[in-house]
Amino acid sequence: MYRDQIKVLDCTIRDGGLINNHYFTDEFVRAVYQALSKSGVDYMEMGYRSSRELYPPCDFGAWKYCDDDKIRQIIDSAGIESNLKISVMVDSYRVKEQTFAPADESPIDMIRAATYVKEIDSAIELVKKCHDLGYETTVNIMAISKEIEPDLVEALDQLAKTPVDVVYVVDSFGALYCEQIEYLVKLYRQHLPGKEIGVHCHNNQQLAYANTIEGIIHNANYVDGSLFGIGRGPGNCCLELLVGFLKNPKFDLTPILKVIQDYMLPMRDEIEWGYIIPYMVTGILNEHPRSAIALRKTDRKDKYAEFYQEMCQSPA
Amino acid sequence: MYRDQIKVLDCTIRDGGLINNHYFTDEFVRAVYQALSKSGVDYMEMGYRSSRELYPPCDFGAWKYCDDDKIRQIIDSAGIESNLKISVMVDSYRVKEQTFAPADESPIDMIRAATYVKEIDSAIELVKKCHDLGYETTVNIMAISKEIEPDLVEALDQLAKTPVDVVYVVDSFGALYCEQIEYLVKLYRQHLPGKEIGVHCHNNQQLAYANTIEGIIHNANYVDGSLFGIGRGPGNCCLELLVGFLKNPKFDLTPILKVIQDYMLPMRDEIEWGYIIPYMVTGILNEHPRSAIALRKTDRKDKYAEFYQEMCQSPA
Repeated sequence: MYRDQIKVLDCTIRDGGLINNHYFTDEFVRAVYQALSKSGVDYMEMGYRSSRELYPPCDFGAWKYCDDDKIRQIIDSAGIESNLKISVMVDSYRVKEQTFAPADESPIDMIRAATYVKEIDSAIELVKKCHDLGYETTVNIMAISKEIEPDLVEALDQLAKTPVDVVYVVDSFGALYCEQIEYLVKLYRQHLPGKEIGVHCHNNQQLAYANTIEGIIHNANYVDGSLFGIGRGPGNCCLELLVGFLKNPKFDLTPILKVIQDYMLPMRDEIEWGYIIPYMVTGILNEHPRSAIALRKTDRKDKYAEFYQEMCQSPA
Repeated sequence: MYRDQIKVLDCTIRDGGLINNHYFTDEFVRAVYQALSKSGVDYMEMGYRSSRELYPPCDFGAWKYCDDDKIRQIIDSAGIESNLKISVMVDSYRVKEQTFAPADESPIDMIRAATYVKEIDSAIELVKKCHDLGYETTVNIMAISKEIEPDLVEALDQLAKTPVDVVYVVDSFGALYCEQIEYLVKLYRQHLPGKEIGVHCHNNQQLAYANTIEGIIHNANYVDGSLFGIGRGPGNCCLELLVGFLKNPKFDLTPILKVIQDYMLPMRDEIEWGYIIPYMVTGILNEHPRSAIALRKTDRKDKYAEFYQEMCQSPA
C-alpha cells in the first residue's frame, strides 16, 4: 500500500511507558530516536505531558512529563540529521495545570489529547489552546467499543468545529474486528469533513496490525505502531510490520530491526507484553484489561480457564 | 460471525509435529482430543499418513504415520463421548505406497491431500482413491503466493471435475494480506462451483487469524487453527481466537484454555514457535521459511537486521 499522505507514528516510549512507569533510560530513548530517524518514520511519541502535582516525580520516570528540555537533550545528543517529528500525549481529562511553550520554541511538533467521549470538552479546550500555540493536534477518543453511537457521533460533530488536525479511532480494549474498524473509520470521515483520521489498535486478539491495515484501506492516514509491539498488556500494532507493509520507499526496515534486536529483545525478558491469554480474554469480552493486569500479578496468572469463567460470570 | 456451515479444524498435532518430528506423547494427544471434543471443534488432524519406506520410523514419532490402530488407541482411551471427526494429511506428491482401509473400518473421517500446483495430478489421484473408499477429502494447494495465476486456475479447474469436498487457500509463507485472501477465496469459489473453500494461514506477520476471518467473510467454510497457534516457525491461526470469534453456541472456549494452560504453556519453553522476527522477514518477502529455520539454529539467530539485508540481497 503506497499513499503519500500516510503518516506513521511510533508510540514505543509512550505506550511502553505504561508498563514501567515511564522509566526508560536516556540511552534507550536516544537509540529509538536514532532508529526511527533513519527508518523514515514520521512521528515519535516521547511520552505523556502530565502534571507533577497529580503525578509526583518520585513515582514516575521522565517520560511521564516530557519536559521540553528533556526532549531537547535526547535530540541534541543523538548527533543525527532527522526529519522525525515529536509528539506527546496529554490525558486531557486529568489535567491540573498545563504549560506549553509556543510551538516554535519547543522541540514538540504535535500534541495528542487522549480522552473519553464524556470528557470530550476537555480535549476540545486543549486542542484550541495548543493549536493557537502553533502545534499540530490530535484527539484520541478512547474506549469507543463501549460507547453508544449517538454519544460518539455528538463528540465527533463537536470536534468537526474545532481546529483539530487528526481524530483517532482507538481500540482501547483490543475488542474490535475489521468490519467494525471499517464502520468506525467511515463514521469518523463522514462526521469530520476535512480532518484526517487516525487508527490506534491494541493487540489482545492479534488483530492490531490487521485492523490498522483495514483503517488504511478506508483512508485513515495516521497510523500508530510500536517497536516489537511494546505496550501495556498485549501491546500495540508492531511498527516493523507496518513499515514492512507500506511501500513508500522513504521507509527502511533495517534500523528498526536493529533496535529491536539490540534493545527490545533483552527488554522483553524484564517486562511483559505480547500475546498473553488473559488479555485475549478481556479483548474478546470487550473489557478493560484491568482484571487481566491484576491476575498477572498473582500466582494464578496462568489459570486461563478459571479466569475466563470468572470474567464471563462477572465482568469487571 | 455465526454460520452453521462453518467447520473448524484443529491442526495442533499435525502442524505442531513439524517442529518436533511428530514426537508428541499419547497423553498430550489424548488431552487435545478430549479438549477439542468438549469444546465442540469439528475436526482434529492427528498428523500425516506418510510411508515408512520414505520416512524411516527411527527418525519420527507415531504422528508421522497415523496408523488406524494408533488413532483408535487414543480415542478408546479418552473415555469420552465425542462428535469430533478425525483427519490426516497426506503429502500427495511424496507418496510411495499408500494403504487406506475403507472409511467405515477406519477411525479417520477425512483425508487432506497437500500438494503444490505442479503436482496437482498426485492430489487428484489420491482424492479419487480416498473418495471411493468413503472418506471426506480436501486438497490443500500450498505456496500459492508464488504461483502465476493461469497455473493455479488450471489446477482449480481440474479439481472442479473431481469428487473433492473442500479446496483450501493455503498461505504457506504467511505472506498474504487480507485483500489477497479475499481475491483468492473468490477465485476459488468461481472455479470450484459446488465445492467448499477452506483457509489455512500462517502467522509470520500476525495476520493468520485476521486472514482467516477474511476468508470466513467471503464464504470460506472450512477454517484451520491450532492451540496457542503452535506450528512450524510462526505457527498458525490460534484456535482459541477462532473459537472466541465464532458465535455458534456449540463452541465452548473453556476446555481449550485449560489444555493451553496445562500443556501448551510448558511446551513453549521447550520448542519454539510464535512471532519471531526472522519468520516475519520471510513472510514480508514472500519466501519459504527455510532460511529463517536455518538461522534460528545458529548463534546469529537474533541478528535480525543482518538477516533482513541478506534476504533482500539474495532471497533463498
